[in-house]
Amino acid sequence: MSDYTDRYITVFSPEGRLFQVEYASKAITGSNTYVNSIGIRSKDYAIVIAYKRLPEKLVDPISITHIFQISPSIGCVMAGSVPDARALVTRARSEAAEFHKTNGYEIPCNALSQRLANINQVYTQRAHMRPLGVAMTLISVDDEFGPRIFKVNPAAECIEYNAVASGPKEHQLLTYLERKLGDRRYAFGNWRRLANMGVKALNAALATTLESDEVEVGVVGINGFRKLTLREVKNVLRDVKWDILIERESRPCVV
Amino acid sequence: MSDYTDRYITVFSPEGRLFQVEYASKAITGSNTYVNSIGIRSKDYAIVIAYKRLPEKLVDPISITHIFQISPSIGCVMAGSVPDARALVTRARSEAAEFHKTNGYEIPCNALSQRLANINQVYTQRAHMRPLGVAMTLISVDDEFGPRIFKVNPAAECIEYNAVASGPKEHQLLTYLERKLGDRRYAFGNWRRLANMGVKALNAALATTLESDEVEVGVVGINGFRKLTLREVKNVLRDVKWDILIERESRPCVV
Amino acid sequence: MSDYTDRYITVFSPEGRLFQVEYASKAITGSNTYVNSIGIRSKDYAIVIAYKRLPEKLVDPISITHIFQISPSIGCVMAGSVPDARALVTRARSEAAEFHKTNGYEIPCNALSQRLANINQVYTQRAHMRPLGVAMTLISVDDEFGPRIFKVNPAAECIEYNAVASGPKEHQLLTYLERKLGDRRYAFGNWRRLANMGVKALNAALATTLESDEVEVGVVGINGFRKLTLREVKNVLRDVKWDILIERESRPCVV
Amino acid sequence: MSDYTDRYITVFSPEGRLFQVEYASKAITGSNTYVNSIGIRSKDYAIVIAYKRLPEKLVDPISITHIFQISPSIGCVMAGSVPDARALVTRARSEAAEFHKTNGYEIPCNALSQRLANINQVYTQRAHMRPLGVAMTLISVDDEFGPRIFKVNPAAECIEYNAVASGPKEHQLLTYLERKLGDRRYAFGNWRRLANMGVKALNAALATTLESDEVEVGVVGINGFRKLTLREVKNVLRDVKWDILIERESRPCVV
Amino acid sequence: MSDYTDRYITVFSPEGRLFQVEYASKAITGSNTYVNSIGIRSKDYAIVIAYKRLPEKLVDPISITHIFQISPSIGCVMAGSVPDARALVTRARSEAAEFHKTNGYEIPCNALSQRLANINQVYTQRAHMRPLGVAMTLISVDDEFGPRIFKVNPAAECIEYNAVASGPKEHQLLTYLERKLGDRRYAFGNWRRLANMGVKALNAALATTLESDEVEVGVVGINGFRKLTLREVKNVLRDVKWDILIERESRPCVV
Amino acid sequence: MSDYTDRYITVFSPEGRLFQVEYASKAITGSNTYVNSIGIRSKDYAIVIAYKRLPEKLVDPISITHIFQISPSIGCVMAGSVPDARALVTRARSEAAEFHKTNGYEIPCNALSQRLANINQVYTQRAHMRPLGVAMTLISVDDEFGPRIFKVNPAAECIEYNAVASGPKEHQLLTYLERKLGDRRYAFGNWRRLANMGVKALNAALATTLESDEVEVGVVGINGFRKLTLREVKNVLRDVKWDILIERESRPCVV
Amino acid sequence: MSDYTDRYITVFSPEGRLFQVEYASKAITGSNTYVNSIGIRSKDYAIVIAYKRLPEKLVDPISITHIFQISPSIGCVMAGSVPDARALVTRARSEAAEFHKTNGYEIPCNALSQRLANINQVYTQRAHMRPLGVAMTLISVDDEFGPRIFKVNPAAECIEYNAVASGPKEHQLLTYLERKLGDRRYAFGNWRRLANMGVKALNAALATTLESDEVEVGVVGINGFRKLTLREVKNVLRDVKWDILIERESRPCVV
Repeated sequence: MSDYTDRYITVFSPEGRLFQVEYASKAITGSNTYVNSIGIRSKDYAIVIAYKRLPEKLVDPISITHIFQISPSIGCVMAGSVPDARALVTRARSEAAEFHKTNGYEIPCNALSQRLANINQVYTQRAHMRPLGVAMTLISVDDEFGPRIFKVNPAAECIEYNAVASGPKEHQLLTYLERKLGDRRYAFGNWRRLANMGVKALNAALATTLESDEVEVGVVGINGFRKLTLREVKNVLRDVKWDILIERESRPCVV
Repeated sequence: MSDYTDRYITVFSPEGRLFQVEYASKAITGSNTYVNSIGIRSKDYAIVIAYKRLPEKLVDPISITHIFQISPSIGCVMAGSVPDARALVTRARSEAAEFHKTNGYEIPCNALSQRLANINQVYTQRAHMRPLGVAMTLISVDDEFGPRIFKVNPAAECIEYNAVASGPKEHQLLTYLERKLGDRRYAFGNWRRLANMGVKALNAALATTLESDEVEVGVVGINGFRKLTLREVKNVLRDVKWDILIERESRPCVV
Repeated sequence: MSDYTDRYITVFSPEGRLFQVEYASKAITGSNTYVNSIGIRSKDYAIVIAYKRLPEKLVDPISITHIFQISPSIGCVMAGSVPDARALVTRARSEAAEFHKTNGYEIPCNALSQRLANINQVYTQRAHMRPLGVAMTLISVDDEFGPRIFKVNPAAECIEYNAVASGPKEHQLLTYLERKLGDRRYAFGNWRRLANMGVKALNAALATTLESDEVEVGVVGINGFRKLTLREVKNVLRDVKWDILIERESRPCVV
Repeated sequence: MSDYTDRYITVFSPEGRLFQVEYASKAITGSNTYVNSIGIRSKDYAIVIAYKRLPEKLVDPISITHIFQISPSIGCVMAGSVPDARALVTRARSEAAEFHKTNGYEIPCNALSQRLANINQVYTQRAHMRPLGVAMTLISVDDEFGPRIFKVNPAAECIEYNAVASGPKEHQLLTYLERKLGDRRYAFGNWRRLANMGVKALNAALATTLESDEVEVGVVGINGFRKLTLREVKNVLRDVKWDILIERESRPCVV
Repeated sequence: MSDYTDRYITVFSPEGRLFQVEYASKAITGSNTYVNSIGIRSKDYAIVIAYKRLPEKLVDPISITHIFQISPSIGCVMAGSVPDARALVTRARSEAAEFHKTNGYEIPCNALSQRLANINQVYTQRAHMRPLGVAMTLISVDDEFGPRIFKVNPAAECIEYNAVASGPKEHQLLTYLERKLGDRRYAFGNWRRLANMGVKALNAALATTLESDEVEVGVVGINGFRKLTLREVKNVLRDVKWDILIERESRPCVV
Repeated sequence: MSDYTDRYITVFSPEGRLFQVEYASKAITGSNTYVNSIGIRSKDYAIVIAYKRLPEKLVDPISITHIFQISPSIGCVMAGSVPDARALVTRARSEAAEFHKTNGYEIPCNALSQRLANINQVYTQRAHMRPLGVAMTLISVDDEFGPRIFKVNPAAECIEYNAVASGPKEHQLLTYLERKLGDRRYAFGNWRRLANMGVKALNAALATTLESDEVEVGVVGINGFRKLTLREVKNVLRDVKWDILIERESRPCVV
Repeated sequence: MSDYTDRYITVFSPEGRLFQVEYASKAITGSNTYVNSIGIRSKDYAIVIAYKRLPEKLVDPISITHIFQISPSIGCVMAGSVPDARALVTRARSEAAEFHKTNGYEIPCNALSQRLANINQVYTQRAHMRPLGVAMTLISVDDEFGPRIFKVNPAAECIEYNAVASGPKEHQLLTYLERKLGDRRYAFGNWRRLANMGVKALNAALATTLESDEVEVGVVGINGFRKLTLREVKNVLRDVKWDILIERESRPCVV
């Protein structure tokens, strides 16, 4: 049955599933994709981290970015198809600008996330356009509710998270984050500690040591969103290495 | 035969069935969906309850809601696809606002339900758009007819109920409610008793104890619709636990 | 061959049949539908009766109706898909209102029936829309011709009847009515006798005793169309029970 | 091959045939259709006769008609799908009215027939619409050429006949008419004799005795077109019966 | 392969062929068509002849014509599908009239032929419309170039001929004409001799004797185009018969 | 695989090929086509030659032409489908006229060729239209660059050649021309010598002697483009015959 | 599965891949393509080199170019389908001109690359148009960032490279460039040294000696973009030959 029904974008399968939407999710978590992303928040900050595997050695690492600023106070990390990500970011910026022009103040992060999810929903209902194969994690610090993390996926869901991960290693990353956060809604500490925690999660999930040009970090605080410079990323990675070293030595020897 | 005819949205099968509509219903009652909803009414109140299973542990439970306010006096609970639900709620709010602007008074709940069902009917007749995989249960207190419960489903039917349930456990919930209501058109008591009854129904059907962040309750009375706060939901759940405890103890021991 | 040709709405089969139209008729007479309807006329009245099986016990029976008023003097009973019925009734009312506004008098029942059949014909000729799976029986008392009954079906036929039935038990109902009417064009008596006759036909065809909330009756006389109240329906059903009782007793015992 | 090519409306088969057009003709001559029609002309009159088999016993025979007046001086008989017939008649009337309004005189019968054939031709060339499954026989008395009979078929042909027949018994009827007319272009006598001849043709072809409510007759003379009343039809049928009786008696006995 | 590619109108087959165009030609030369046409020219005249087999005996032969006047000086004979022929003639007349209105003089025959071929080309390149299954042979006497014969076919070719034939017997007719003309570009004599020659060609190719109501002849000279009257056609046929008789008698007896 | 992917015009095959474009090329080089064309240039002239095989004996050879004048200084030879050629020539003339009107001077040959190739590219990317099955060879003498030859093919390539050939014998013709030109960019001599060389190429490739009515020659010099008259073509052919005769006699005898 | 899903342009496969996009890339790297391209940058210059294999011997090598100037300061090399390349270059020039007109200064190379990638993204999401089978490598010297190389591919990715290659020998070329550049972001020297290095890469990858008419070189410095003349290219090739000769002699003999 699935031989046929999955060819038509907007049609339910006999089990009530929309195959195209599920396949689009595979463009994010499938083995032929390169990006893993993380979002974490504390009481004052929210950060996004992207681990990108460079497709070729000669690529200028700076030109491949998965962290984008949408408005002064909203940033995001994209996981999945890069061109689709660019299309959705362009749309997000345009929606944010339009909102600012119309209403005189910046679009709240939750409103923008809902709007983008609504746009994605149309791609899952109408024919002639496939869904976008990309998961978008938006972060912002709300004046009222503090740091918030929203994730918009190809199924057009828009969900708020305490911490979130996307990409082929999504499962391992989430397990790590769940263990660290437990039942708390916020992680402790300033953005440096959040970045430290995120990088350790990637280290653990990928079972590899990260290089500074493979990692991007975006931070949002009360003053708005910014991407960390390469130097700041290097510092984060160096701190993590020290921490791991110390941790290992302090571990009692198990025979 | 069904291999082929179910691929085309708006076409009858030889038995006179519209497969796409039936498949869309599976998106509500299928095993891969997470929401069970209930609607009950008494002489003065109507309530809706949603039991949501959180997809992941790190999700902020507040961001996943299935109970929405459409107008000051109309609320609803959505079961099925979350993005489709959001699309239909957006349309419902827009229809309600349009009606209020045109006529100067609020849209009656039955008129709104009919209107939404008409919109759904178009999705079942024309090509190029699939039906929405969501069941909407609207509640309101009518000045003339008192509390009313309407359910709009993907087949575009709009039916008034004395009590209603949607979701994978629909069958068990309905059985419970039918036993409780018998032939009466209204349940007894204020909204607290209705909520109590609804939670017990969910307890029975799901064979589990509900957590406060998995349950949402919406109440409509003569003064309009509101969602219960987390604290109020907790109180309801606590009361239910006491009731069950008392009930169990007071039950004569059966060998 | 039929594997393929029936997938295309507007295409003739090699035998000159339009399969989609025939399948749409199955949506009216198929075993998974719930409505049986009857139309009868006498010299002064025409009535329509709908027998509806409630899909679930908790449904408010009043909210499921198959008898609609189209204009002050025209009523109808719909058999088949409920959402399609609502769509066609909405169209019929709009056509009737438009006619009244344009011409200053009410649309005659035969003109309206022809108009609706023409609309249905378009659904059988053009692609992109399926035919409506509903049979509409319109009644009215014409100033000139007296009571008239028209039936519009998915094949877009518009035929006048002396008495008519639609639904899964169509065949049995027609047999009963044919036996009662014989060659007469009108049944005898006022609307109470017509209703009595119709209920007996349903009793016989369904081999069950009707409940008052499963039966709807619409009556049209020289003063216009109205639906009977629940109380009036109860009276009709009670009378029928008495008649049957009397009839049975007065029947000579057959060994 | 024909499995596939006949599914596409406007495409030639390898043998240069248009299957859809041929299938549409089956809707006229197929065994599941009910109408047989005849057209005959004499020097002063042309008549059309329709023999309709009533689908159900309770149908009001008057409401099923296959003979229509298009303009004061043009009438027609339709064989095949009733809803398609209604659509084509509506179009014909509109074309005739438009012509009269534009030119100030009535549309000649041959011009109207050509126009309708042109409309049908479009349905055989373009996609998205099926051909109409109906054969239209138009009659009129031309000021210059006298009585004329035109037949427009689903293949979009428009041909003038001395006498013509359509429907499942087309072949038998034509054989009868050919035998009666021989090489003459006109039959003898006034319209009563034409009707007599037509009814006898139907009697012979159908091997049954016609009932007055199964026969419709339309007559066009120098003063325009009109349908015979039921009484006139009865008279025609009665005369035919007498004729047959007399003929049978006057026949020499064959052992 | 051809099972599939021939279903799509505007697509090349792997061998670079357009099947739909070839199938459309079968509508002209296939065995289920009825028309054979001829075009011949002399120094002063060009004629077209159509031999039509009447589909039924009761048809008025005058109403089936394959020779049409397009403008005062251009005539044509159509072979193939009659409704498609009518559509193309209508278009040709409209193009001719438009040209005359715009330029103040009549459209030359070659310009009109090219224009019609261009219209046909569009039907072979774009989807949604099939090619017209008809071959059009246009004749005219050009002020400068004298009598000209153009043939426009479904493949959208527009070719000038010294003499031409179309229809199921195209091959035999061409063989006859080639033998008669040899290398000459013009036949000898006035239009009577041309008609005589054409009828003999038909006689030879069809191996039958032509009846006057099966033959149409159109003649174009310096004064314009006209169709021969039935009487003139009869004279032509009678002359042919005499010629054949004489020829046969004067032939030496072959044992 | 190719069974399916080649049915859809604008889709890549797994090997990155566009089948429709390749099939369209078969319409030029396939065995069921009739035209072979050549283009050659010297320092002062460029010529195009078309060898056409007449489809039937009665065709007026003058009416079948494959050499067209586009503007005063641009000519072309078309190989492949004749109706597609006519469509592209019409478009080319319209583009040339438009350019002249807009810019006040004639369109340069390379600009026109690029423009036509761009138009062809659209046919290879978008659905709903097939590519044109024709190869166009344009010649012109550029004020700056001297004689130029451009070829535009169905794949939408536009390439300048020193000498070029198209048609079923393309391969043989190119081999001949390559041998004659060697590494030189221009052939020697005036247009008569070019024509002589082209005809010899055709003689060699086709292994037949050319007739004057099968050959067309177009010449462009500094004064513009013109087609040779039939007399001039005859002279060319006669010269070629003499040359071959002389060459053969002067050849030393090889045992 | 892939038999079917790859036929539909904008649909995800079950593994989350877009087959059409992958097939379009085959049009660049497949064995039936002719172009290999290289881009390299030093601190002051960026160059692009195209190695083109001429399809036929008689082609004027100048007319086949894969290096285009987009604006005074931006140049590009195209690999893959030539007609698609022309279409994308036309679009790029139009975008650049539009930007200059709107903003009064030239479009930066990264902005243009992003814009073209966005246009390509649309071809991968919407139906009815295939992706362009071409990879575009843009070079420019940015006032701020110095020489930059961007590559836009059919998947709509836009990536900055230190050095890049496209075409059937992409893999070998990249390996060579990676070995030469190591971890440096810029190669050493002026544009002559860059061209020297690029030609050696092609020599190595293709295992052949390049001819001057098979190589195109485009150079961009602070003063803008220009293509090297044939003479300059010859000089580059000559230098390379000398270098190889010297290198070979200076190599110690290995037994």
